[in-house]
Amino acid sequence: MLKKVLEQGQRLTDVALERLLPPGTTAPASIHQAMRHSVFAGGKRLRPILAMEAARVVAGKLPDGVEELGSALEMLHTYSLIHDDLPALDNDDLRRGKPTCHKVYGEAIAILAGDALQTFAYEVLSNLKAPAEARVRIIHEIARATGTVNGMIGGQVMDLEAEKTMPGSSTMTLIHESKTGALITAALVTGGIYGAANAEQERALRTFGKCVGLAFQIIDDVLDLTQSSEQLGKTAGKDKSAQKATYPALFGIDESLVQAETLIGRGERALALFGENAETLKELANFLVERKK
Amino acid sequence: MLKKVLEQGQRLTDVALERLLPPGTTAPASIHQAMRHSVFAGGKRLRPILAMEAARVVAGKLPDGVEELGSALEMLHTYSLIHDDLPALDNDDLRRGKPTCHKVYGEAIAILAGDALQTFAYEVLSNLKAPAEARVRIIHEIARATGTVNGMIGGQVMDLEAEKTMPGSSTMTLIHESKTGALITAALVTGGIYGAANAEQERALRTFGKCVGLAFQIIDDVLDLTQSSEQLGKTAGKDKSAQKATYPALFGIDESLVQAETLIGRGERALALFGENAETLKELANFLVERKK
Repeated sequence: MLKKVLEQGQRLTDVALERLLPPGTTAPASIHQAMRHSVFAGGKRLRPILAMEAARVVAGKLPDGVEELGSALEMLHTYSLIHDDLPALDNDDLRRGKPTCHKVYGEAIAILAGDALQTFAYEVLSNLKAPAEARVRIIHEIARATGTVNGMIGGQVMDLEAEKTMPGSSTMTLIHESKTGALITAALVTGGIYGAANAEQERALRTFGKCVGLAFQIIDDVLDLTQSSEQLGKTAGKDKSAQKATYPALFGIDESLVQAETLIGRGERALALFGENAETLKELANFLVERKK
Repeated sequence: MLKKVLEQGQRLTDVALERLLPPGTTAPASIHQAMRHSVFAGGKRLRPILAMEAARVVAGKLPDGVEELGSALEMLHTYSLIHDDLPALDNDDLRRGKPTCHKVYGEAIAILAGDALQTFAYEVLSNLKAPAEARVRIIHEIARATGTVNGMIGGQVMDLEAEKTMPGSSTMTLIHESKTGALITAALVTGGIYGAANAEQERALRTFGKCVGLAFQIIDDVLDLTQSSEQLGKTAGKDKSAQKATYPALFGIDESLVQAETLIGRGERALALFGENAETLKELANFLVERKK
């Protein structure tokens, strides 16, 4: 069941991305090739899958065109990765097992390709097959989630500034919730809005998103310590060498895994109002934690 | 009259930017300070003023809250300047007479501050005091105008790639129309949408915007050759040393000025349907060309 959801979600997202993104032959070609290089570097399409599944849970079936919302979320995630990998930030050569955008296209084009993926995401969002009122709410939710105040960029800044200082657990939780959690939460909430969720359903998806998003980042940090670069598709052990603030650095691996599973349990309980319909969302949450094995 | 419009437009925009942007004390403080450093470095607020004046021409008076649209346009313009000035792109130390964002805050924060100004612009646009249908149309128009296909980022890429190749006049016009013209046009068109323009009014504003946007860039390129760094507030003569494709490089200064004035005339004629109401827009267009003196 879960395997089918993951495969279908990936396929729908990839088809939408392929259709929406300008071809690599459209002028100016270099930027479109750079955008496609990073977007099609083999991502798991986790955020689109969460958005689509949230929309399905609310609407009873997969709403028409929701994969375009998913593809916009993936563009935003990819833009953040391209900029995060730049020499001035994390200076990473590998991402998803492939050379990073700036290694292939140079820094100037990588900066602009990240910019353009952000821009294009909002173009796609403005065109969604949903009422205008839902579209502006989705755009607002996503802009907040990727912004500076408790959002993705704020998390990246705090992460940069926390290097070598080893902040306390509350600061670290805030970094994780902002850097990774906010966009994962926005994926679930905007999927819900797309599916015409009521206020109570939206709140439930938000709570679930916050728990799952934090658990996801904890597991990511554990994997950075326990897996090889080959397994990760990116340079392993970077957090440790950069003395980054992570759960395993502060609590150890075992305690971090316990905390992640506690969060998943709390997130799953928030979905009670959806009854059996939420089984797939719960399986997705468990899948994120199971990655450690 | 014009002086009053420029002063009022600047003041309204600055007050809105001050109110909307997170204070420099909000955590993470560095990014908010960097955003404010560049936004309040003394810009002319040209795009906001054009948007507000377009809205006024259509609606008969300045519509409530249109300065928030103006402030979002200024955030997008500022984000493009911050990224354009980065060492990997134009590598500029001075902008509007002040040290560029990365010179003060470092490259990592400058990249993220640019990103964040783009993100925050969409948050502001999603909240405009206009019907949801108008808001999504405004967002769509602006995302297209700042994107890769005949938009601002596309113009930046073509500009980078045209260095040292000296393209023909049609390519150069496309670069100018994309890099500078598209956002100026979008300012006028979205101002019109905010003022509830009909299709004919919107077309007129778009034609005016295309002419004025191209004339503006021609004048900018002339000023780069004829003024000092002190007068410009940024490094003068950069185009020439980078062998950039510009109108004065291809046609000479005098012929470029003639072309700019021809464009302004064509733009002004497009405003005929607004009658005397469009006088201020015409004065603004002339003001842009008069800068050369």
